[in-house]
Amino acid sequence: MSKKNAFYAQSGGVTAVINASGCGVIETCRAHSDQIGTVYAGQNGIIGALTENLIDTSKESAEDIAALKTTPSGAFGSCRFKLKSLEENKREYERLIEIFKAHDIGYFFYNGGGDSADTCYKVSQLSEKMGFPVQAIHVPKTVDNDLPITDNCPGFGSVAKYIAVSTLEASYDVRSMAATSTKIFVIEVMGRHAGWIAAAGALVEDYGIPVVTLFPEVEFDKDKFIAAVDAKVKEFGYCSIVVSEGCHWPDGTFLAEQGTRDSFGHAQLGGAAPVVANMIKDALDLKFHWAVADYLQRAARHISSASDVEQAYALGKAAVEKALEGKNSIMPTVVRESSNPYKWSIGEAPLSEVANVEKMMPMDFISEDGYGITDKCKEYLYPLIKGEAYPEYDDNGMPKYVTLKNELAAKKLPEFEI
Amino acid sequence: MSKKNAFYAQSGGVTAVINASGCGVIETCRAHSDQIGTVYAGQNGIIGALTENLIDTSKESAEDIAALKTTPSGAFGSCRFKLKSLEENKREYERLIEIFKAHDIGYFFYNGGGDSADTCYKVSQLSEKMGFPVQAIHVPKTVDNDLPITDNCPGFGSVAKYIAVSTLEASYDVRSMAATSTKIFVIEVMGRHAGWIAAAGALVEDYGIPVVTLFPEVEFDKDKFIAAVDAKVKEFGYCSIVVSEGCHWPDGTFLAEQGTRDSFGHAQLGGAAPVVANMIKDALDLKFHWAVADYLQRAARHISSASDVEQAYALGKAAVEKALEGKNSIMPTVVRESSNPYKWSIGEAPLSEVANVEKMMPMDFISEDGYGITDKCKEYLYPLIKGEAYPEYDDNGMPKYVTLKNELAAKKLPEFEI
Repeated sequence: MSKKNAFYAQSGGVTAVINASGCGVIETCRAHSDQIGTVYAGQNGIIGALTENLIDTSKESAEDIAALKTTPSGAFGSCRFKLKSLEENKREYERLIEIFKAHDIGYFFYNGGGDSADTCYKVSQLSEKMGFPVQAIHVPKTVDNDLPITDNCPGFGSVAKYIAVSTLEASYDVRSMAATSTKIFVIEVMGRHAGWIAAAGALVEDYGIPVVTLFPEVEFDKDKFIAAVDAKVKEFGYCSIVVSEGCHWPDGTFLAEQGTRDSFGHAQLGGAAPVVANMIKDALDLKFHWAVADYLQRAARHISSASDVEQAYALGKAAVEKALEGKNSIMPTVVRESSNPYKWSIGEAPLSEVANVEKMMPMDFISEDGYGITDKCKEYLYPLIKGEAYPEYDDNGMPKYVTLKNELAAKKLPEFEI
Repeated sequence: MSKKNAFYAQSGGVTAVINASGCGVIETCRAHSDQIGTVYAGQNGIIGALTENLIDTSKESAEDIAALKTTPSGAFGSCRFKLKSLEENKREYERLIEIFKAHDIGYFFYNGGGDSADTCYKVSQLSEKMGFPVQAIHVPKTVDNDLPITDNCPGFGSVAKYIAVSTLEASYDVRSMAATSTKIFVIEVMGRHAGWIAAAGALVEDYGIPVVTLFPEVEFDKDKFIAAVDAKVKEFGYCSIVVSEGCHWPDGTFLAEQGTRDSFGHAQLGGAAPVVANMIKDALDLKFHWAVADYLQRAARHISSASDVEQAYALGKAAVEKALEGKNSIMPTVVRESSNPYKWSIGEAPLSEVANVEKMMPMDFISEDGYGITDKCKEYLYPLIKGEAYPEYDDNGMPKYVTLKNELAAKKLPEFEI
């Protein structure tokens, strides 16, 4: 059997460590150059495959590929582009297989969340039917932490660390100022469907900080919320609030949509944080500050957790190793052996069980009053934010993040309209 | 001469490194215990002196005092409380001197910005007149970087590093997503009067990032701004925008006040970032994300610059050493010897020349089009963000920040109404 090339693509919202997975994939392929040929990467994700914009990663130096481990974002470009169902758009799947065939690609490593797991699964099925079997392996990535079977998803641990550390730091700040000035600090965090990231902010309770957390899993009750904050301020003199962007009223309306209008009459100008802050101002007349971390949280490679970086790399590496073992249509997973001391290993899950399954935060991770987290949740979270994995810095004091050359391979097929 | 006690207080908005100055003051006093007695710290700043809530720092272990060097916020509490002029409220100044007299305090170390420099100056003058001379030394601190004479102000360098690194990271994120998704990222930074912090965000230009920066020093011109962003997006496919909270229209109205109303009709709900983002959405119809860093930026001890931490400590230490040399009514300063290689030393400035003088950002630091910074500005900024000075982390993965015991000394005087 002649050796096949490989294709790697990054999908969906990028993270601080998705490049670490890419590094794991590429370095492991290079280490097995007797079995795997060139690794092509999709320029801007799967779109790069459809349009035959294939980055030839063999043009990149070993040093630059190694630097991916400490560089946030998607070094080859990512995209928000979900392939429709096979029935609706078989044409796109067939085009993918044609591209793979034209470039002799026998391995498809797709690095993303739930949607890409589904695509990966379908490519594997269809390629067999089309007589050009491709080994499709999904490499998990998502700050939403919502993939099933795997203990956690690379990207989440680093966001969690950023939010836990930032909430602690800002809370210390408010505590210093509370006697005469700011008494309320609100931080808005990502998580439209699940409160995993908000839960990380709630960890600061263990560090003496009065904190009220608003989860998407708990319907918002304004009076109860105000009372909870009031009680904290009366006891501690200040209070931090972590609000998930997905926090919503019983009718499903997001807090962020709560009637905010700009001068042009547009809704949704502000986030949830200013809405919550103003609510407290009205009810309790307390001075507040608020922050919206947005992309800063998922891009913050400077404070990534060591666990997260290691697992991101290990999953990329395992994807290649499992492919070489002949595996197909699977996703390598993180298996938690024990929380204290933290021990984990690499397992695997069939893509048929991963695709289209969303893992929610267990309700027993949220405290009874709905505004905090349980010990069980803490036991789950701490290992994921454990350890620091700093990037190097240059003489200016800026992190050394790599920008790749991203040279495209010559095209072999006619153009394709997406 | 019997040895006198010392009083230290933190004033105004806290920073990632004001405790490092406190550490410098207290450790240096302890090293000279033959000449200086107990160091008292004001509970919540100068208010603690007026109300005789004096923290006895001798109750704190050497280990905890050393940990101040890596702990953000004001460990003794700070306050926003400006003493009125001597004419308007002589009573408060006299109370301060009475407190100093009652607790045998001969050294007053006041750690803050412009207002506290003024207070420090007046205390020094009045104490002499009242026959209980106190050596008043001001220790500079302000993220606003607006104190005169000193090359820079502790606290600023760390905010600058946080904003430069965060802007770079988020820009990498947008660059990854721009093909099919977000093309505009807006980050709002502190600086109501001066664009020092915004200038730090503009540094990412040196790292290949298309960035448009909005300074308080440049009147906002909507059409020109939209055109500048449009040009960057056309050239690079995306654009980052750094907007200072102090950015304003020609009539002085802040962008953040631009007609934003919540459901109760309150103005100023949102910040400048969402206003700018929506402006671009309207004009160019580009997908955007925005972040408001708020307290996260000034509290971010996890990414403090080593220069800043060293200088904060050195200025606290110098304050005590200069007091022991008999100096009075001065502020130790940072003197820049050279930018490349970066060399600095400690100088001093008379408080008469510091009080009520605000140092603005030189106009030749801003590029001709008003949306970037000059080489001169970069040469000034880089040394201030140079080096990393990480805190230690615990086994959970959280930074080890200290919370002091803060035991109060016994009161000796009648109560005082502020």
